[in-house]
Amino acid sequence: MEWYENDLTKALNIKYPIIQAPMASAASVELAAAVSNAGGLGSLGLSYHKIENILPDYKKIISKTNHSINLNFMTHKEPSNNDILNKNFRDHVSKYYEEYGLDTLPNITNTCESFNSEQLDLLLQMNPKVVSFHFGLPNKEFIKKIKELNIFIISSATTVKEAKILENSGVDAIIAQGFEAGGHRGTFESSYKEGEIGLFSLLPQIVDAVSLPVIAAGGIADGRGIAATLMLGAKGVQLGTAFLSCPEASVHPLWKNALNNSGDRETRITSAFTGRPARGIVNRLLKEMDGKENIIPDFPTVGSIIKPLANTAAKKGDEDFLSLWAGQSAPMSHNIPAKDLVEKLIKETSSIFKRINNN
Amino acid sequence: MEWYENDLTKALNIKYPIIQAPMASAASVELAAAVSNAGGLGSLGLSYHKIENILPDYKKIISKTNHSINLNFMTHKEPSNNDILNKNFRDHVSKYYEEYGLDTLPNITNTCESFNSEQLDLLLQMNPKVVSFHFGLPNKEFIKKIKELNIFIISSATTVKEAKILENSGVDAIIAQGFEAGGHRGTFESSYKEGEIGLFSLLPQIVDAVSLPVIAAGGIADGRGIAATLMLGAKGVQLGTAFLSCPEASVHPLWKNALNNSGDRETRITSAFTGRPARGIVNRLLKEMDGKENIIPDFPTVGSIIKPLANTAAKKGDEDFLSLWAGQSAPMSHNIPAKDLVEKLIKETSSIFKRINNN
Repeated sequence: MEWYENDLTKALNIKYPIIQAPMASAASVELAAAVSNAGGLGSLGLSYHKIENILPDYKKIISKTNHSINLNFMTHKEPSNNDILNKNFRDHVSKYYEEYGLDTLPNITNTCESFNSEQLDLLLQMNPKVVSFHFGLPNKEFIKKIKELNIFIISSATTVKEAKILENSGVDAIIAQGFEAGGHRGTFESSYKEGEIGLFSLLPQIVDAVSLPVIAAGGIADGRGIAATLMLGAKGVQLGTAFLSCPEASVHPLWKNALNNSGDRETRITSAFTGRPARGIVNRLLKEMDGKENIIPDFPTVGSIIKPLANTAAKKGDEDFLSLWAGQSAPMSHNIPAKDLVEKLIKETSSIFKRINNN
Repeated sequence: MEWYENDLTKALNIKYPIIQAPMASAASVELAAAVSNAGGLGSLGLSYHKIENILPDYKKIISKTNHSINLNFMTHKEPSNNDILNKNFRDHVSKYYEEYGLDTLPNITNTCESFNSEQLDLLLQMNPKVVSFHFGLPNKEFIKKIKELNIFIISSATTVKEAKILENSGVDAIIAQGFEAGGHRGTFESSYKEGEIGLFSLLPQIVDAVSLPVIAAGGIADGRGIAATLMLGAKGVQLGTAFLSCPEASVHPLWKNALNNSGDRETRITSAFTGRPARGIVNRLLKEMDGKENIIPDFPTVGSIIKPLANTAAKKGDEDFLSLWAGQSAPMSHNIPAKDLVEKLIKETSSIFKRINNN
């Protein structure tokens, strides 16, 4: 058996245990199809999609690949819409609106739905090989309906406690999301601080705590990283940032530019862009909201007031308010097509194992 | 060649590439000697030692082992002794002193010297195989004198930038200290936030950036961890928390108890106990100083006021003010003698490589 064949690849019906992270704000039909065609598992984050675009996008993917695909939804708690919090945050952001000559400071509203019955109906209709959830799981009834169709269910854990909860809730595999990972922390039951665990510590502890296949995520950028996760007991890896640099990803040029210069920059976890902690490259909004977490409204409502600002600033060439999501291994990215990246990762990992075998 | 033989083990004249972290507040002559006798590199942190105890302790070690030994010193900046900061911190801590019926709130004073000429003279006299420094390096003149005796020099980096600085300053090997590590962050040139990088990201980036052997530290607890660091390019590992649980370590029973229950507790990085960020198990002082970093005086002066309090509280059975240093893999510890631990680590790693070879 090759190093890349195991019960996970068999269950997912993929050649290589490499999952492209769904990355709702950057994934594209082209990226997902390219990864799946290359032997990995392509993913598409659908929570930011308008409901009427979900089915057409899925059809586009399956017109480009007949391999397994993972569809991803967010399962966050409904925002509380705290009036005082909203007012304080609007007051704070209003100075940025003035600076950019933006007249109307919008009301703070919901910008993306937590996985709901409409999305469930579409999911059951699309019937993909795999569905993954971020921020926990949908309710038991929804899980039951998904399992009836034998759709493989994945979700992320940032603590051992969360991994056990996922196992007991019927998932088929668990992503151990290390502190290194870019984008939103998957933390859903532990505190965010408790969930700040490096992959080196988190992965083996989750592997020991559950009997399901564990997928490693966070800071994995090349064959060395893949081989290391296998040593620690992972059955597969999920890479986000590495795929962000592929031309197929839908990434704003200013974001791309920040990624390409990430070696000279810092990433940090912040709630400033969406209301939930996520890792991105440090820019102006991230810095200026540091220490002001107590005035940030709930996910995802923050986006309703930050996104218009980010877009206006970006049009003027300023990255200051864009969420520049990136993991801590962003400087190791390559800007090559997804197919080439998957092949590169496999080749690198294979050569490591070959070298060990020759010793 | 066996997996554990490489240029680092050769240079250090040790059998296995396993370094016991110096851990000034917990290391002992017995622990260091036991690790070196077992084939690893035993270390003794000397910065908290009274100057007159350094030589006698070194003599005790070499009476117990004729293998390589690593002596460790801290090279922190001299504390600024900011009167306002000291007053605010004393005011804050005074309530704890009252609570424990302690009459005299001591003045804030220096508690341990940064590596100085007296310590240098002793080091040159002892002439150990290895010296390691934490918080950067001593000045160029000191380094020159140490190198004249061919003492192998190690220091820790928490960013790629720091690793390059160390390489250019004449060290012989670099420790990549991941975010997972227990005890004091070695950060010396980057900001502490910049230095919060998981080992999965930090290690390969440092390996790529320097041509010296890199030693991995942070979250490594068993053979899986060792094998994983080797995949990422490390030539050796430094384990602290794993050795903390050995009976040879000098650990307060309340600390030991916290370590043994670390699976149900959280570790976090705090400056509350010493004035420099260090990872420990969350207890009362850590929690109550959260968000009050701006009133904490410089390292190491904080200890002059916190340690008497910690000792009094500990006598009453309270762990509330003890620094319960621990890494994120503390729950994976075993409470076995150091010799058994080294053997276990080697056996586990060997069996992983044997398994790969049989595939």
